[in-house]
Amino acid sequence: MLKSPLACRAAELVCVLRGRRPLVHCITNYVAANDSANLLLAAGASPIMADCSKEAEEIARKADSVLLNFGIPNPDKLLAMKLAGKAANSMGKPVVLDPVGAGVSVFRKEALSALLGEVQVQVIRANAGEMQVLAGEESVSHGVDSADSDDVRAAQTVALKYGCVAVMSGETDCITDGTNTVFLQNGHPMLAGLTGTGCMTSALTAAFSGVTKDFFAAAVAATVYMGICGEIGAKYSRGVGSFRTALLDAAGTLTKERILWGLKVK
Amino acid sequence: MLKSPLACRAAELVCVLRGRRPLVHCITNYVAANDSANLLLAAGASPIMADCSKEAEEIARKADSVLLNFGIPNPDKLLAMKLAGKAANSMGKPVVLDPVGAGVSVFRKEALSALLGEVQVQVIRANAGEMQVLAGEESVSHGVDSADSDDVRAAQTVALKYGCVAVMSGETDCITDGTNTVFLQNGHPMLAGLTGTGCMTSALTAAFSGVTKDFFAAAVAATVYMGICGEIGAKYSRGVGSFRTALLDAAGTLTKERILWGLKVK
Amino acid sequence: MLKSPLACRAAELVCVLRGRRPLVHCITNYVAANDSANLLLAAGASPIMADCSKEAEEIARKADSVLLNFGIPNPDKLLAMKLAGKAANSMGKPVVLDPVGAGVSVFRKEALSALLGEVQVQVIRANAGEMQVLAGEESVSHGVDSADSDDVRAAQTVALKYGCVAVMSGETDCITDGTNTVFLQNGHPMLAGLTGTGCMTSALTAAFSGVTKDFFAAAVAATVYMGICGEIGAKYSRGVGSFRTALLDAAGTLTKERILWGLKVK
Repeated sequence: MLKSPLACRAAELVCVLRGRRPLVHCITNYVAANDSANLLLAAGASPIMADCSKEAEEIARKADSVLLNFGIPNPDKLLAMKLAGKAANSMGKPVVLDPVGAGVSVFRKEALSALLGEVQVQVIRANAGEMQVLAGEESVSHGVDSADSDDVRAAQTVALKYGCVAVMSGETDCITDGTNTVFLQNGHPMLAGLTGTGCMTSALTAAFSGVTKDFFAAAVAATVYMGICGEIGAKYSRGVGSFRTALLDAAGTLTKERILWGLKVK
Repeated sequence: MLKSPLACRAAELVCVLRGRRPLVHCITNYVAANDSANLLLAAGASPIMADCSKEAEEIARKADSVLLNFGIPNPDKLLAMKLAGKAANSMGKPVVLDPVGAGVSVFRKEALSALLGEVQVQVIRANAGEMQVLAGEESVSHGVDSADSDDVRAAQTVALKYGCVAVMSGETDCITDGTNTVFLQNGHPMLAGLTGTGCMTSALTAAFSGVTKDFFAAAVAATVYMGICGEIGAKYSRGVGSFRTALLDAAGTLTKERILWGLKVK
Repeated sequence: MLKSPLACRAAELVCVLRGRRPLVHCITNYVAANDSANLLLAAGASPIMADCSKEAEEIARKADSVLLNFGIPNPDKLLAMKLAGKAANSMGKPVVLDPVGAGVSVFRKEALSALLGEVQVQVIRANAGEMQVLAGEESVSHGVDSADSDDVRAAQTVALKYGCVAVMSGETDCITDGTNTVFLQNGHPMLAGLTGTGCMTSALTAAFSGVTKDFFAAAVAATVYMGICGEIGAKYSRGVGSFRTALLDAAGTLTKERILWGLKVK
């Protein structure tokens, strides 16, 4: 049985990641920081967590990619995101945005809008609600569509509006550049029961984006990687605690063959 | 054998919590944030961790309850607590306070005093030392009492002084509104050997407070829930690491029957 | 077979630590804070995590030792480190510095330099790269030496320059006061694959420094303790997740006999 080019590419990127060990500058939140750092290490990347505006630019310049995560924002961290994002832009390094809780406050919405006005991001990974907020009024329901189609349209709108790859996580993950859209069905419901798995997927997307210029492929690789780790983790878990343990264990031992044969396109 | 009304009520609240999935706005510390979020998810609540003053009020308004945790305080987080607390007060939503390290510095003591002067809290959960600090000079030893009785009097003083339910965690947990006092004996010594278990219990108390107006019952439910998770966790653990894992696993699978039959009143 | 005085001393300190339960004031980063607190609890110390400048001095005065960890720095935390460090100095309490990411930014380098100009530290624990940054131009390669020797010379330079014990972590750990140098070979490669293990070792070094005036012995004890926990943890792990769990489990059950017989001097 021939595997899809998508699966081949994702499997290949897993090997590239481990060979290159990209330095990923993570500006993230303190709920997900530890698990994200461990996931990146397990997958083969090298995380550097630093969120102070006074060193964000310099660290971003040294990194292979930058993660901007909106969880638990504060003014200095937002400034750090802007500086790191612009530094990455100026050096042609990829920026991945995770607009955590995009709609939860005016403060966050305005900060997101300001950031996206100054920084060109290569990938945005979010859940459906966050994607809808980012799509804004430009994403309108046409009445006859299902809710799912609305969400997909929101992701496509975001991709076109910001000139990036949009990854919408959910039961089915949707990855789109606005024109091409793929749906992946890896993962497990337990991923939604563990805090920070979205943040971790975004961090991993930044890691893969650090080793290729094909950000669509990077997004697919990170999404399927995390999804399959969730599938494996669920098998060895009796709850949230052991799921976290098993998820991180799986992240360190996942083979390219498992990616190649495990990737599920809808 | 008939079960106590207390146990029935706690068991019932476990079901209500899972059915309602209350949104709990946690302003907490970075040591306990991840475990607290995972505990809330496992128990059936929906945590939102956000500690910036610029969005605290808005998020508190959307939440079903608010947790104010004094671990690792800083000026902006204290302002966020005041704003979130007042917003919750104005909307009739419960506020749970965990005065972590109440006596550790003048800064913390003064901040606690200022907060309690502006925000009406529905529950305060603390250990004996913190309770003594909050009770202040109003809780004086009368010479003939045991140390335990002093602690209980401190909790009762705090409950009356601040018009709230006071939960004092220890080998025996004491829950009081100043008039009615119950003593629970669930739990395990390993809970004291894992960082953040007090913070986690406070977060869970906020979750239960988000689904009932009977905050005494909410405090009992959270205390017994955490205590029994500790008992189960200890059975499956070989140390701090596996205890944490087993504790979170238990939190996701605890049945109302286990609460009903496991609750131990002194 | 007679054991070395080094091993005897380390084993003895393990017992002293558990008997005394030193209060360790940790100013650290949010990636490693939870694991560090749990490690300290498991080993028998009592951690207090607090990083705000407004209470740093007071808490340092109450503590038995102070940990200053440079991970994820920000201006207020750096001020807190200075205040806590000077308070500890004035009371003759030990200060342990972990110059995380010393070379990663001008901001961090300058902050480190400023801190070391105002605070006398008793132990510095770092990896080879960080040690080279601290040694600065005073540590020059002499061409014929191996890279390892350069690193060792950097550690010795740091020890002499700052009048402290320098602990350089790596495949072989090097502990030196500039004159006496020992090489330990405990540990496991998995320690490098888990985030925060360096930070944890530094926290443990602060704990041991809180129960003896012999900081060289404290550094040896912490290094071998963590190293053997890593060895045990690796046996029970299938990846990063279960390694973390097993590491913390081992930390709570490690016997002085295991230290005595397990310590490997090069």
